[in-house]
Amino acid sequence: MPGDWAIYGRAIHAPDGIEALVSALICVGTDGMILSVETAVAADDPRLARLRAGGSLVELTPDDILIPGLIDLHIHAPQFPQLGTALDVPLEDWLQRYTFPLESRYEDLAFAEDVYACLVETLLAHGTTTAVYFATIHLPATKRLAEICLDKGQRALVGRVGMDHPEQCPDFYRDASAEIAIAETRALIGHIRDLPGNEAALVRPMITPRFVPACTDALLEGLGALAAETRCTVQTHCSESDWEHGHVLDRCGVTDTAVLDRAGLLRRGSVLAHANFITEPDAALIRARGAAVAHCPLSNIYFAGAVFPLREMLDQGLHIGLGSDIAGGPSASLFEAARQAVAVSRLLESGTDSRKSAAARGKPGARIDFRTAFRMATAGGGESLDLPIGLFRPGYAFDAVLLRSGLPDGNLRFAEAESAAGILEKIVMLAGRGDVAQVWVAGRLVKSR
Amino acid sequence: MPGDWAIYGRAIHAPDGIEALVSALICVGTDGMILSVETAVAADDPRLARLRAGGSLVELTPDDILIPGLIDLHIHAPQFPQLGTALDVPLEDWLQRYTFPLESRYEDLAFAEDVYACLVETLLAHGTTTAVYFATIHLPATKRLAEICLDKGQRALVGRVGMDHPEQCPDFYRDASAEIAIAETRALIGHIRDLPGNEAALVRPMITPRFVPACTDALLEGLGALAAETRCTVQTHCSESDWEHGHVLDRCGVTDTAVLDRAGLLRRGSVLAHANFITEPDAALIRARGAAVAHCPLSNIYFAGAVFPLREMLDQGLHIGLGSDIAGGPSASLFEAARQAVAVSRLLESGTDSRKSAAARGKPGARIDFRTAFRMATAGGGESLDLPIGLFRPGYAFDAVLLRSGLPDGNLRFAEAESAAGILEKIVMLAGRGDVAQVWVAGRLVKSR
Repeated sequence: MPGDWAIYGRAIHAPDGIEALVSALICVGTDGMILSVETAVAADDPRLARLRAGGSLVELTPDDILIPGLIDLHIHAPQFPQLGTALDVPLEDWLQRYTFPLESRYEDLAFAEDVYACLVETLLAHGTTTAVYFATIHLPATKRLAEICLDKGQRALVGRVGMDHPEQCPDFYRDASAEIAIAETRALIGHIRDLPGNEAALVRPMITPRFVPACTDALLEGLGALAAETRCTVQTHCSESDWEHGHVLDRCGVTDTAVLDRAGLLRRGSVLAHANFITEPDAALIRARGAAVAHCPLSNIYFAGAVFPLREMLDQGLHIGLGSDIAGGPSASLFEAARQAVAVSRLLESGTDSRKSAAARGKPGARIDFRTAFRMATAGGGESLDLPIGLFRPGYAFDAVLLRSGLPDGNLRFAEAESAAGILEKIVMLAGRGDVAQVWVAGRLVKSR
Repeated sequence: MPGDWAIYGRAIHAPDGIEALVSALICVGTDGMILSVETAVAADDPRLARLRAGGSLVELTPDDILIPGLIDLHIHAPQFPQLGTALDVPLEDWLQRYTFPLESRYEDLAFAEDVYACLVETLLAHGTTTAVYFATIHLPATKRLAEICLDKGQRALVGRVGMDHPEQCPDFYRDASAEIAIAETRALIGHIRDLPGNEAALVRPMITPRFVPACTDALLEGLGALAAETRCTVQTHCSESDWEHGHVLDRCGVTDTAVLDRAGLLRRGSVLAHANFITEPDAALIRARGAAVAHCPLSNIYFAGAVFPLREMLDQGLHIGLGSDIAGGPSASLFEAARQAVAVSRLLESGTDSRKSAAARGKPGARIDFRTAFRMATAGGGESLDLPIGLFRPGYAFDAVLLRSGLPDGNLRFAEAESAAGILEKIVMLAGRGDVAQVWVAGRLVKSR
């Protein structure tokens, strides 16, 4: 729609706890930012008639509910073809046997374009309006990923992966030197920031050392310096598995978090994927730096060997959002990540071994509920990235997903009498791509059925 | 199609390990039973031309793969409206606060018809060709559930719930006496067996004491005698949670399994839901009687407080299939139950508490993989029920699901080069209702898009 427009109906978001917005009128500017949010607007309010007459009103039905767009903090874009496979080996074998060979194919730009276009379309269809991507070491393909996001209208943070350590990276898929990795990262930052049509920074670069084991100290330090210089945010992995956490302790004498901080990589807006084995001092350091954790409950089941102590870390005040971790996690749906976050928190709380007594089995107080999961998938992601997204508030971008009850391939069935909490629990526990009717990013309608 | 017909293409099933059926020709009789299965049939085989000319051939495309229909061993039909909600309290509270009030509403036959019709349609759309249902204590609504299954063509086993214990069942939802519960169960058995159109026993009755806590000894013994007399199979719950398992030990001095056996309820074809806390002698008794376990990984997360030791019980030779446990489990999809069976087995193996050492955390050897999960969802369910379903074999019913790669709301993307195991892993880890193109039960096409 040209000019300002508005949407009218019910919505739900999570500024802190859950807030239901009943008969809400959300006005959106031409720049895609929310101008105003008003609730309890009567159906006969004259403003609605004026907007309707001007063709500037989207009106929801009683089967519809609007939620903030989903924010996926951790996606390996090149791994999309192996989604749902290769979940049977430990992390270190998974990388060497399956993942590095697949990622090395993105030297082929045509292959990269096909996969990346399909992935971005798929994620938008699932309601993911903001995607934080690891690409590969290939600069041309990584540039194309950023361009595809901009073209299709997905808010994205895109990183060229840096990985130069000769002991952990194979000959066929490794940066030739730290200098080249740093220079190409610098080139990507410039390319994305200068992309025509990207004046509002819908797509942003991200500095992306793969993880400490794959990077030499020189690369880590060089990328840290580049982050300070360019004020570009950072993404990497942190204390993911027993092996990975132990490997860094052995090599560096300190934890991943300490190594990253020493290199200047722990910054506001930095995203650390997993963090399953971080210590209390690690958590305090992450909080002090304003960095965030991408909780990836799906892949942790297969590659972590433990459950991230989410409740404890939320209580310590960390910024935490959710990641699908495609393709370590076998789902492109952030709804799936949200419900799995609830599920694994319950298994952490209860424990798993029925031969132990209930008291000896679990970890009391570890559970989260659907409200917390929803918050992490929306407002928590926005806070993590330090961007005005994930809430229906003036000054925030209008990134939104319209869910509709009763769609042919959908799971959602709202009854009239249900409470907002009841509807939200159904959304978190049941929703999938078949329930997504429309998706907006920065006020632009990017998916519709 | 009138007369015999055939389907030609690729299929996969799990007679023991996984068996890929390449260029398979499956011939189906007018009674819906498989007449023959032949593989490596050339595309120019003259039989194909003859069948095609006679309009009696269904031909799959390279995007298609046929799997046996899914067999869901544990569904509470009346709980469908609360799917995805009320997962925040222990089992005993969940029953009293949410579930018994909802189930009591099925005295209203119109309400029951609406819910049951929607549920049966939904399950067929998800590829569930055989459904094992708990209904409620209401005989008229339970009869209607059986009739709806027959009408819509779903293979089903349907039970009127018996629950007469005044301490565990509320006044508003309890059998007035053991005698009435037994008499109405007998009436249901006769009604279903004599239903017009049910000569092939597509729908079968099941004797259904809710669980030991809800039943007096008189009811358990009376239903056991009825099972012997009518040769009707039995379904109930068994050792589900710490509370439930402990309650039965306190009341009866022995485990659920022993109580059920004493009452004559452990029989070939009997289905015990959950069994999370069964002992080794319990497992030996279940195996000796030929009874089966319905593993319900989704609901166990919320209501069991532990993970069913699946690998161990499979190794002990028990019949085991999968249950969605609607609505204790927040999904109607047996694919979801299959992948969650893999996931929780991994968490049992690894343990969950990252503050413990890897050695102290888990239970080595507890994992299952996608092959085992697929087998439980198909052939394992058929074995559990002692019915010729779940395999593509002569003498088995043609109950089948056609999955198609690339459907608009689907998750499956098969590449030409993938192995049968790779395709099957994607199916188990990713498939949902949006991937289901067609569904047959007893040779009848019951869903198609």
